Amino acid sequence: MLIIDCHGHYTTAPAAHNAFREQQLARLKQSELAPVARGVISDDEIRETIETNQLKLQRERGADLTLFSPRASAMGHHQGNAAVSLDWSRACNDLIGRVVGLYPDNFVGVCQLPQSPGVPIADSIAELTRCVTELGFVGCNLNPDPSGGHWTSPPLTDRQWYPFYERMVELDVPAMVHVSASCNPNFHATGAHYINADTTAFMQFIEGDLFKDFPALRFVIPHGGGAVPYHWGRYRGLAGMLKRPPLAEHVMRNVYFDTCVYHQPGIDLLFRVIDLDNILFGSEMVGAVRGIDPETGHYFDDTKRYLDALQLTDAQRAQVFEGNARRVYPRLDAILKARSR
Amino acid sequence: MLIIDCHGHYTTAPAAHNAFREQQLARLKQSELAPVARGVISDDEIRETIETNQLKLQRERGADLTLFSPRASAMGHHQGNAAVSLDWSRACNDLIGRVVGLYPDNFVGVCQLPQSPGVPIADSIAELTRCVTELGFVGCNLNPDPSGGHWTSPPLTDRQWYPFYERMVELDVPAMVHVSASCNPNFHATGAHYINADTTAFMQFIEGDLFKDFPALRFVIPHGGGAVPYHWGRYRGLAGMLKRPPLAEHVMRNVYFDTCVYHQPGIDLLFRVIDLDNILFGSEMVGAVRGIDPETGHYFDDTKRYLDALQLTDAQRAQVFEGNARRVYPRLDAILKARSR
Repeated sequence: MLIIDCHGHYTTAPAAHNAFREQQLARLKQSELAPVARGVISDDEIRETIETNQLKLQRERGADLTLFSPRASAMGHHQGNAAVSLDWSRACNDLIGRVVGLYPDNFVGVCQLPQSPGVPIADSIAELTRCVTELGFVGCNLNPDPSGGHWTSPPLTDRQWYPFYERMVELDVPAMVHVSASCNPNFHATGAHYINADTTAFMQFIEGDLFKDFPALRFVIPHGGGAVPYHWGRYRGLAGMLKRPPLAEHVMRNVYFDTCVYHQPGIDLLFRVIDLDNILFGSEMVGAVRGIDPETGHYFDDTKRYLDALQLTDAQRAQVFEGNARRVYPRLDAILKARSR
Repeated sequence: MLIIDCHGHYTTAPAAHNAFREQQLARLKQSELAPVARGVISDDEIRETIETNQLKLQRERGADLTLFSPRASAMGHHQGNAAVSLDWSRACNDLIGRVVGLYPDNFVGVCQLPQSPGVPIADSIAELTRCVTELGFVGCNLNPDPSGGHWTSPPLTDRQWYPFYERMVELDVPAMVHVSASCNPNFHATGAHYINADTTAFMQFIEGDLFKDFPALRFVIPHGGGAVPYHWGRYRGLAGMLKRPPLAEHVMRNVYFDTCVYHQPGIDLLFRVIDLDNILFGSEMVGAVRGIDPETGHYFDDTKRYLDALQLTDAQRAQVFEGNARRVYPRLDAILKARSR
């Protein structure tokens, strides 16, 4: 059995990558500054940042492979404009491509999109296509709120998003619904904005009819589905009040939750209420919560430990750690099969 | 032991009350319309709407008393202006006062505030004071987002809110953090906006130092604390990363969660991770989710059933159903003591 972590970000990228972003944003404020070129990053620098962080933790914790995407909080779709977002997204995705090239057994790519507030999502199709067909990526992170906490885009069920969904279906790649940093002081990024976005997206799917129009479209809602499993009765009840079909057929044929829930009781609840078919192992390490839980002596985000503590059969474990990911990300499955894994 | 439901709204108010609101909003669009007077509502109309709904369910489900406030989704702070909000809030609160007058054993009042986007919260102090000192109310519903889903106010920890908190402390009344309807199409009111606001407020309390400045200030975060108990590890971990004190001392001396979580697994989680001192029985009936759960054959919002299924001692039951509410709402305790309850 492979242990596939569906949710990891390159939060430890080399300094030259972050410096490029800083210069890019500085130039926005002072247009007389020279055009910004990407920093030079050696393979050794990438190895250093990966081997002392994600790869080290992958090995220590016993995972085999991570679906790896650019740092989510740094996507910063609300900063700059569409051109800036495209430059930055390509740099981020190319860097992920290099990580995958150096460690093809340990990382498979998931891309950031060059979204920008008010800019049609169709403009992100080319970068998705490039990442999937040229870099071999298997999915993308789709930001339902490129405004960064002001929520000025239409709901994910709106037809404005459809051109992008059509391409997702053609390429047979899922999207993780993932916001970036918040520029609204009400919302702490990882403590409120992330979780709220997860909850919000799920409720939009209940209200809409998106999966009637796109039966093959698939979304992973991270962070254990936001508030949804804890309020599963509320969502079942609201679906009824809104005259929607039962969630199992209306939403849960197309929506999956990861296991980025950082304590045992939360994971226990997730597995108690959500069908095993809809749960993908994920940790988001190195990510939002980096400390050690004083109550357990283990890292909060070592989510494999919580899953290991569940009473799962071998078949169930294989499903959550490997099978579901291969099913939701068919291009991952193809990559693995080509390597006889 | 009394069974005190800390969270009920007058969602079934007489038609004349709702007509007043409609006329009030219509006049905003056509200022040539005559000034709007409150509709005439007889005691019998109030009795009819209460006895066939909240009082009937209270009796059927075995609760004794509900902390009763105006319909939250109809507060509509984002509609109109401060004057409209004040007129409407006074009408809503007066109506709650009449319910309490007719059924003093079954309902105790909690007020709506005349908030309005961009208007200082200090302007709500007079109505809070009126409701507490003249109508005998014991708490208020404080909206952290009077814009209705655009989140244009400062966080609840900002000093702009302090004048109101000073008055809350003087009057010794808590606030339930409760948003109203959403005019942002991203957020379904009861399925996303409510839950997001609960989560958001809790994270604001972690980030801030509000309870150092107001050690006696108390908030009830409804709907089981939004996403917080499910992600309790995340919040403990974030508090550590932000160099905040442990949640037990930094937040949980001042913050309480109700039990408006509409399925057994959610309630089980709540009681597993949150200290019993911080949980108040609540149902929000007749409210967000009005149907019968096909999986149990009982109403989703009959939350007492979920609590009855817990393995609680008599002392623990007394605490969650009665003791905590009397402690968090001292004016409720005083009312009950005056009646030898």
